[in-house]
Amino acid sequence: MTKKNAFYAQSGGVTAVINASAAGVIEAARQHHDTIGTVYAGRDGIVGALTEDLIDTSAETDETIAALRHTPAGAFGSARYKLKSLEENRAQYERLIEVFKAHNIGYFFYNGGGDSADTCEKISHLSDEMGYPIQAIHIPKTMDNDLPHTDCSPGFGSVAKYTAVSIREAGFDLHSMCKTSTKVFILEVMGRHAGWTAAAGGLAAEVEGDAPHILLFPEIEFDRAKFLAKVDATVKAHGFCTIVASEGVEVANDRDDRDIDAFGHVQLGGVAPTLAELIKKELGYKYHYAIADYLMRAARHIASATDVEQAYAVGRAAVEYAVAGKSGVMVTIDRQNDAPYEWTIGEAPLSEVANVEKFMPRNFISDDGFHITDAARRYLKPLIAGESYPPYVDGLPDYARLTLAPVAKKLGTSFEV
Amino acid sequence: MTKKNAFYAQSGGVTAVINASAAGVIEAARQHHDTIGTVYAGRDGIVGALTEDLIDTSAETDETIAALRHTPAGAFGSARYKLKSLEENRAQYERLIEVFKAHNIGYFFYNGGGDSADTCEKISHLSDEMGYPIQAIHIPKTMDNDLPHTDCSPGFGSVAKYTAVSIREAGFDLHSMCKTSTKVFILEVMGRHAGWTAAAGGLAAEVEGDAPHILLFPEIEFDRAKFLAKVDATVKAHGFCTIVASEGVEVANDRDDRDIDAFGHVQLGGVAPTLAELIKKELGYKYHYAIADYLMRAARHIASATDVEQAYAVGRAAVEYAVAGKSGVMVTIDRQNDAPYEWTIGEAPLSEVANVEKFMPRNFISDDGFHITDAARRYLKPLIAGESYPPYVDGLPDYARLTLAPVAKKLGTSFEV
Repeated sequence: MTKKNAFYAQSGGVTAVINASAAGVIEAARQHHDTIGTVYAGRDGIVGALTEDLIDTSAETDETIAALRHTPAGAFGSARYKLKSLEENRAQYERLIEVFKAHNIGYFFYNGGGDSADTCEKISHLSDEMGYPIQAIHIPKTMDNDLPHTDCSPGFGSVAKYTAVSIREAGFDLHSMCKTSTKVFILEVMGRHAGWTAAAGGLAAEVEGDAPHILLFPEIEFDRAKFLAKVDATVKAHGFCTIVASEGVEVANDRDDRDIDAFGHVQLGGVAPTLAELIKKELGYKYHYAIADYLMRAARHIASATDVEQAYAVGRAAVEYAVAGKSGVMVTIDRQNDAPYEWTIGEAPLSEVANVEKFMPRNFISDDGFHITDAARRYLKPLIAGESYPPYVDGLPDYARLTLAPVAKKLGTSFEV
Repeated sequence: MTKKNAFYAQSGGVTAVINASAAGVIEAARQHHDTIGTVYAGRDGIVGALTEDLIDTSAETDETIAALRHTPAGAFGSARYKLKSLEENRAQYERLIEVFKAHNIGYFFYNGGGDSADTCEKISHLSDEMGYPIQAIHIPKTMDNDLPHTDCSPGFGSVAKYTAVSIREAGFDLHSMCKTSTKVFILEVMGRHAGWTAAAGGLAAEVEGDAPHILLFPEIEFDRAKFLAKVDATVKAHGFCTIVASEGVEVANDRDDRDIDAFGHVQLGGVAPTLAELIKKELGYKYHYAIADYLMRAARHIASATDVEQAYAVGRAAVEYAVAGKSGVMVTIDRQNDAPYEWTIGEAPLSEVANVEKFMPRNFISDDGFHITDAARRYLKPLIAGESYPPYVDGLPDYARLTLAPVAKKLGTSFEV
């Protein structure tokens, strides 16, 4: 096997543990130095490949790469940049392969969600067709947990833990104060059109009366009257009511002015204040709400140890698969047992992953639509298990700062992204 | 000295560490069992005293009381209930003393902010006047850090740490994505009319370009044009801009519909979306914002170890002061040195504490009004130092659940609160 370099890029919304996958890729590649030359990272994800703006990861010490395991967000820069279809913009794909060829890159590791799986698959096919075969391996990542064929998506376990911890803490707060102050608290969580994150919040409720009392899933049609009745009954029974609301819940219909992102996704948010106003107006209860937004996906300080371990493992496995000659696959996490949680590493063909969204099974949601079932608990519980604290200096987490050394360009051409 | 029982109550907005003060009071009182009988806690704070709804803390095991050190919020219930002035409602104070007398209570430990210091002082005076002297000691608590005569207020160090950690993490997130996605991120923090919490966020910025780039303090008049110019310059220089905004900043003037709480305080909030819309409209940058709200004050999972230690110490000291015969004082934390941080326990007369708000000194805020100075860093840095993690079970913090055994009523009378 001729020694080739590797290209690694981060794609889409970052997570608390995507850098753990980067550490897995780079550490495994360094061990396979007989097969894999240098790992180049794309500055700002795939944009770095298109513009030939590569980062030389060999300039980073082993200590810095190890520190990526406890550093949130995308250390090399990620991108919300979806490549067009082959028919629409073949030039983009040809450019990628031209850049890979110029830098003797034979391995493409793409760390992202459904959109990047799609890109990864196209690169795999087109490179073959163009006579410069590239082994393209997809490394799963998305806090939304909507990738198919894998037990979970790295990044999810940590937002799940953040959500469950936060709503438990807010529940203790409300319980303390509800006699004379706030009666209703709403935590709005990200997660797009899948309710996984809100469901994870449900783990905090262990005995009758525990927060959260109500979960709102995008998978369940919002029923104003039923919701208000449930809030009122909860306040009357327990003195307060705590709610975890998915950003993707359609509470009102007057939200046509929302922004659209580069992937054509609607910019979500605003559910919590809408619900709060509704409750105030119809029930008269004093409310507070929090909007977690990016805090939840960046919260490495409260990451799930299971999630960190899995994120690292899928990064390592991608390199092992590449060395074994595989291409066109996504690394998967295969659950073998719920309790104790046992999982192995597997693979799925990218053709079955790209652009497929996995939603919550209906049997994970209680009959009334407002909470999770025992089946959901069995699935979710192991994903938030374990704490994996970063080191601290002066009271603040000591996250890795990289050199990010640029690689000299070999092509005289520029490319408009 | 005749043996008397003690009454302990939590007041106002709860914090991540107010229960550590409760643990300090109860543990110290148990050690002084020759002087102090039973510690009764007010269910829902002072409301429990007025309604003779007392909790017998002797029903809680030593292990449960120790677990309060790692449990957020108010374990006995807190209240937003401000007693009226003596002139307006002398009956309230007389009722308190009547209940205390009925239960042989000679020590009153009130754990709260400025309003509760005021109540504490009135009890101290009136009980003397009524011939049933009660030793009233105030235990400082407020995440707002606005109590005078103490280096800091227990509860503040933990929200300070939460804010600094969160904005550092969000900064890493933005930095990863700003090339193709969100350019501006705003974190709205609680803290009422004092900018202490936002200032603490500033600790996360250690080198040029670090998040947060802009802090908005209520102490500085909001200047729209100057703010927008700063945001724009930051995005142009660093690719993104992160902002910590105090809820008390007056961004717009059209907010007259805000709710008023039981203390006559305006319900704040809504600064982040207002700023975000302004930035979008005037500069066109894509934004995201988070509203921390109660999550920050309940976040025991990321509490400052210094804060936990101080909260516990002021609780213990209150009992020691009572046993030593003191009354009408607040326990204080007296700074002896910045680095290494050295502090001792002291006291201040309640007459100098009640209803006095401590604002940020102007020399803690940079000349342009958008960040903190080195003087502020020297003050703030030790307050967030150290981590004090709660124990976890199945991935979730294992917070104390109390028995909360009611004390049999001795008065045949009810009291309307």
